[in-house]
Amino acid sequence: MKVLVVGANGQIGKHLVSFIQDSNSLKAKAMIRNQEQASFFEKLGAETVVVDLEEDIETIAKAAEGVDAIIFTAGSGPHTGKDKTILIDLDGAVKTIEAAKAAGVKRFIMISSFDTRREAIQAASSSFAPYVAAKHYADEWLKQTDLDYTIIHPGRLTNDKGTGQVEAASEVERGEVPREDVAEVIVASLENETTIGKEFQVVTGTKPIKDAIHSI
Amino acid sequence: MKVLVVGANGQIGKHLVSFIQDSNSLKAKAMIRNQEQASFFEKLGAETVVVDLEEDIETIAKAAEGVDAIIFTAGSGPHTGKDKTILIDLDGAVKTIEAAKAAGVKRFIMISSFDTRREAIQAASSSFAPYVAAKHYADEWLKQTDLDYTIIHPGRLTNDKGTGQVEAASEVERGEVPREDVAEVIVASLENETTIGKEFQVVTGTKPIKDAIHSI
Repeated sequence: MKVLVVGANGQIGKHLVSFIQDSNSLKAKAMIRNQEQASFFEKLGAETVVVDLEEDIETIAKAAEGVDAIIFTAGSGPHTGKDKTILIDLDGAVKTIEAAKAAGVKRFIMISSFDTRREAIQAASSSFAPYVAAKHYADEWLKQTDLDYTIIHPGRLTNDKGTGQVEAASEVERGEVPREDVAEVIVASLENETTIGKEFQVVTGTKPIKDAIHSI
Repeated sequence: MKVLVVGANGQIGKHLVSFIQDSNSLKAKAMIRNQEQASFFEKLGAETVVVDLEEDIETIAKAAEGVDAIIFTAGSGPHTGKDKTILIDLDGAVKTIEAAKAAGVKRFIMISSFDTRREAIQAASSSFAPYVAAKHYADEWLKQTDLDYTIIHPGRLTNDKGTGQVEAASEVERGEVPREDVAEVIVASLENETTIGKEFQVVTGTKPIKDAIHSI
């Protein structure tokens, strides 16, 4: 199973490509913004493709040709302006979804934010609300497709080493989760067809990741 | 016919409420952000309601109770940050659409941007693209409802006096149009049920507004 990782050079993305390359059944194709980012992935034996998420659907669809699944884990990040929130977190996500359809890739895993419901936009601080809104509309767009989607809503991301243990359900108590564990949750979701058509929140917990995802 | 004007205190909004109050068959309810904006509309004999577009759907729906049509002509404007683009131009519009549904108001007229197609996001300058994207998704959301919508795509807005003459069609050549004429186009659209389910671009032209809108 070949997996296009959109946002591969992000912090979750790097862990994710490593896990994929370590697995027996999966192979990663890392979608990166520029050629200078390629060496990290080449060392892992992963294929790379250079596409900027501000390019058009056709270009992204070309990168998706021949893969079996797409993971969207790109984010505009805290260092870009608010203008990138709508262009990357919303429009970049929607273009990737449309590219999946165009390339005939059914399986799609979206890395969302912990709570992207309408009420969460209202409840967010004024600096966070635009991001929550962008993720809300991206998730809504995906849910209205007939793709085999899974939407993962991680808690507050940390760079701590993964514990391999999480709590995952449609609603869990707010908490933290290491990016490394989120990457492992993505792999477990890819390997569990029971996650298709579902969305769940995930934080650090007490269940081994595979078990937690299997019982979603 | 009672019309809720969302964004009444904007430059198009003020012209629009004036035209509505001047007509025989229409009455305006001006939705404004704060009470200090009310006097302009009270002098015109229009009802006012104070709602901030960052409030929730329920609050907007309450403002829409008992009206026969909603006009969305709010915009974050050039003086606010890019964070308001997604919260007002996209999320504010979507909340107003959802409020229309909740309040049982079928008729909805959206004042959009000249070109909000996917290709226009790509073609826009980096400073304008977030706005085009916000308007694109708001228009898409509206088109997927079963509301009796009309989407108006005006050319570059000016504060010139209205000429009363426009060109309006699904595609017209890029050009300017006075805000006063856009307001009159909105009134003509309200009065022409043939505009339901349609979207059109409009710039200054050679046809009287009523004729131009009637033949959409």
